[in-house]
Amino acid sequence: MKILISNDDGIDSPGIAALAKEMKKLGEVTVIAPRTEQSAVGHAITMKIPLRITEYYKNGDFFGYAIDGTPADCLKIGIRNILKTRPDIVLSGINNGSNTAINIIYSGTVSAAREAAIMDLPAISVSQTSHDARDFSYAAEIALKLSKQVLENGLSKGTLLNVNVPNLPKEKIAGILLTQQGKSKWDDVYEERIDPYGKKYYWLTGNLIETDNDLITDQHAIKKNYVSITPVHFDLTDYKMYNEMKAWELENLMKL
Amino acid sequence: MKILISNDDGIDSPGIAALAKEMKKLGEVTVIAPRTEQSAVGHAITMKIPLRITEYYKNGDFFGYAIDGTPADCLKIGIRNILKTRPDIVLSGINNGSNTAINIIYSGTVSAAREAAIMDLPAISVSQTSHDARDFSYAAEIALKLSKQVLENGLSKGTLLNVNVPNLPKEKIAGILLTQQGKSKWDDVYEERIDPYGKKYYWLTGNLIETDNDLITDQHAIKKNYVSITPVHFDLTDYKMYNEMKAWELENLMKL
Repeated sequence: MKILISNDDGIDSPGIAALAKEMKKLGEVTVIAPRTEQSAVGHAITMKIPLRITEYYKNGDFFGYAIDGTPADCLKIGIRNILKTRPDIVLSGINNGSNTAINIIYSGTVSAAREAAIMDLPAISVSQTSHDARDFSYAAEIALKLSKQVLENGLSKGTLLNVNVPNLPKEKIAGILLTQQGKSKWDDVYEERIDPYGKKYYWLTGNLIETDNDLITDQHAIKKNYVSITPVHFDLTDYKMYNEMKAWELENLMKL
Repeated sequence: MKILISNDDGIDSPGIAALAKEMKKLGEVTVIAPRTEQSAVGHAITMKIPLRITEYYKNGDFFGYAIDGTPADCLKIGIRNILKTRPDIVLSGINNGSNTAINIIYSGTVSAAREAAIMDLPAISVSQTSHDARDFSYAAEIALKLSKQVLENGLSKGTLLNVNVPNLPKEKIAGILLTQQGKSKWDDVYEERIDPYGKKYYWLTGNLIETDNDLITDQHAIKKNYVSITPVHFDLTDYKMYNEMKAWELENLMKL
């Protein structure tokens, strides 16, 4: 069993170390991850500049390959140029901080798994609430067990599972729920500051406004201490609007 | 009528100038766009460093605001900190090069419009095939006419229209089609090269493998010289897989 692991927090993050260690119980793990933190880069890919591949060592032992690019870059160059064969499954994480609701759009963690799904590989992204998480053992255990289930049951081509795990010890977890992407969004606030030269600059802050209040959503599930598992795909067509727009007579735009 | 215009090719691109000029026929245009080209940045947002806002002049006249960030950043800071009121409609483009099929995932042009859709604003992204396009007049005309139709008919909240226009004079356009996101993907190839110091580096190249052969898809529509209009949303839940997974007994993962 060949397992590829990536993330967006960077190859030196504790979350990816915990995930790699646990997944070794299932098969041969290769870590290919960004050299530096790439949070919120979404599905960016690097085209204007070249990439480099560096062997990365931890405590003197080979740990994996560091790429000076984005999570999606890591998947692309990792599978095309580093691995000799396609992996059986791809995992991304364990991310420091949840990736639920609108954050799925911005997340590099989810995008690494999505790039795998684009390549028709089964993929799982795993995130843990709290940016200060240090113990990833339960989230890693979930990743391993869910990987076994994915390999057994199969996933539709083009689908990944986006997993969010509360930052709690195992005995405090309320359960595991199959969920949908929530609708909570950010109230972006740009803090205006003045630099040492008297010029203004703006720093993005804000809070997630939690409008989800049903356990069917990823956002509310983790708030209520459940592990949330959401199947995510990359077919962005809005079929409901597509059907409504059949009445629009778009062809008439030509005649205007 | 207040119109916000952004793009991913940068504020100095000819496509955004053509779009801004045409859209002035409909109302008051504000341009807020990346200072430098941001192609393929996807839905990246800037959190680790601050942003700056610069007034940008063309031929001595004020043209708009340049942001040293991504397309999604431009929408966020533009609406929160530059505009005094929410715009009535947002347009992104006109992009040099199509944004169809899998490219919707990577596109900064589409992501600017998607960020507007996240803010519940009607939004249209416009791209023109060919990276060498110089005459954007027909695509700009389509953008204006479609904007009028969107303002008249309304769009579902959270939906944007992704428009692709062949790089052809108006009389050679075959028609206008309502489409769905195609399934064509890239055969990524990383060219391996050696730098002046003897070290390897890798540059992303490749071709879009056109597997779409039905005019119902954006990819095939533009290939056959049609304007393609696809409604796109950001609900990434795979509902088909969601329903299948109800049989997975995920709760049992806890007991393992």
